[in-house]
Amino acid sequence: MIAVLTGGTGGAKFVDGLRKVVPPRELTFIVNTGDDFEWWGLHISPDVDSITYVLSDLLSKERGWGVDGDTFQCLEAMKRLGEPAWFQIGDRDLSTHLRRTHLLREGKTLCEATAEITKSLGIESTVLPMTNSPVETRVTIPEGEISFQDYFVRRRFRDPVNSVRFSGAENSSAAPGVVDAILSAEMILLAPSNPVTSIGPILAVSGIRKALQDSTAPIGAVSPIVGGAAVSGPAGALMAAQKLPVSVAGVAEAYQDFLDFLIVDSADAEASQLFTNARLEMYSTNTIMKTNDDRTELARAVVSFASDSKKLKVAS
Amino acid sequence: MIAVLTGGTGGAKFVDGLRKVVPPRELTFIVNTGDDFEWWGLHISPDVDSITYVLSDLLSKERGWGVDGDTFQCLEAMKRLGEPAWFQIGDRDLSTHLRRTHLLREGKTLCEATAEITKSLGIESTVLPMTNSPVETRVTIPEGEISFQDYFVRRRFRDPVNSVRFSGAENSSAAPGVVDAILSAEMILLAPSNPVTSIGPILAVSGIRKALQDSTAPIGAVSPIVGGAAVSGPAGALMAAQKLPVSVAGVAEAYQDFLDFLIVDSADAEASQLFTNARLEMYSTNTIMKTNDDRTELARAVVSFASDSKKLKVAS
Repeated sequence: MIAVLTGGTGGAKFVDGLRKVVPPRELTFIVNTGDDFEWWGLHISPDVDSITYVLSDLLSKERGWGVDGDTFQCLEAMKRLGEPAWFQIGDRDLSTHLRRTHLLREGKTLCEATAEITKSLGIESTVLPMTNSPVETRVTIPEGEISFQDYFVRRRFRDPVNSVRFSGAENSSAAPGVVDAILSAEMILLAPSNPVTSIGPILAVSGIRKALQDSTAPIGAVSPIVGGAAVSGPAGALMAAQKLPVSVAGVAEAYQDFLDFLIVDSADAEASQLFTNARLEMYSTNTIMKTNDDRTELARAVVSFASDSKKLKVAS
Repeated sequence: MIAVLTGGTGGAKFVDGLRKVVPPRELTFIVNTGDDFEWWGLHISPDVDSITYVLSDLLSKERGWGVDGDTFQCLEAMKRLGEPAWFQIGDRDLSTHLRRTHLLREGKTLCEATAEITKSLGIESTVLPMTNSPVETRVTIPEGEISFQDYFVRRRFRDPVNSVRFSGAENSSAAPGVVDAILSAEMILLAPSNPVTSIGPILAVSGIRKALQDSTAPIGAVSPIVGGAAVSGPAGALMAAQKLPVSVAGVAEAYQDFLDFLIVDSADAEASQLFTNARLEMYSTNTIMKTNDDRTELARAVVSFASDSKKLKVAS
């Protein structure tokens, strides 16, 4: 079994590669829910949705979010009714939010609702929201504190960021199955997701970081930072706000208390040698996922690195 | 000001004609909410929607319900997620239910939510749901008691009906503005709607029947029964279940305690003479609304009859 911590569009691409080189039943995804928010009265869980869509072949490759070939009739009509339209929900995409919200209002947990939805879509992997508790990523910009979606989607991450916090994390607990998945995994991978706002909320949930520290499996991360900048999105600015170097060293630092190996892009192979040490193994390969082949090749390389790492670890 | 009690597809057609012969600002619609139900976790108000759509030029003339030219992408996706699909909601139509449900969850009443939606759509007439209280039309068939939508849409009104009741009506009160609209109207019209399940629930709401009895304005109804059968839908079977003759006489009987005039189809002109009396005036005209012209001509005739009736009433 492989446990994967993931969130964001980089995470979804990595998951897409992974599901093609590992039998889907052997994959458990622990997914960021810090971006969850209420929209039009519905519970939206953007990262859970992206993983769900990628695993069911529904994700729009063009956009990197939402359902491929979706239409936006409802969104257009909502504008006319005075509802905000800056978060774009397609008509097919909407079904997931409606179904989830309906299940939650019937008393199901987010985990249970996710299990029902993924099962309906024929997904064989396990998709675990990191927690059933409300944890909300809050971003402080010069104008004040706003939600992550406000910062990321509505304001298109243009604002300077002073700090990031995960509201509710201190009182949260890991969703059922999350800690077990980590402790029983033979390999644990951190997708090339934003370390601050995609992986950060997962690590902030009570018990998850501890489980990673306790795990005897090799734990590897793919750096979302290439050549001193994020491959996409605001990871750079957010890492800087959290006082992390915007470099592969910063990624290593974010995970330093549990990480066994770090996969950096070939472009960073040299830079990574600066902090290679006995504890942290470094691998380099092409991590930029432009094509389907890039995705599967990266996944294959990562799994291979982890197998190597495991051997080394067991031998030590 | 004209107050109109309405519901169902016959009601929507009549309203379409009326809005073309009377300035929309002078029209107040008191609309059946006995068919309201929860669907996919959303509050659906079919009769309020039909009137809203007809007044904003959105109603599908082809179907008689929903939004013209709508698509059904979300519905198809909902089927895959295991939600029922027998009540067909289009993608644009969905926006109305989402917006209403969102407003209700924010604490707005059904009346307030309806006012916001109709305003957004540029509707100048007043659309008043009959009540903000939960009133539910329940139909008893041989297999037991079911909801109106279950009987009407899912089972396509094929079951024999033993009885009909309006659950919650005894504890309901008319929505703000309803009694005032009736008492201050210069003319009150009952659309050619099903007397049992479209107009019946309105009359069952506390205070509405009394207001009609107290009104000094002429009150007229257009018969939905032509030649001893309903123009469309299950009005015949439901009238029989309520021990009403399935005829224009049955329509007169349903409204006997407040009705001043009844408009019957030309085909029933003779039959209607059987119960013409000093209290109830009878008019006949073409009431079958196949074309747009049929709708406006019927509306024009009804308003004209009401004006005559008023004079007669004042003179007596």
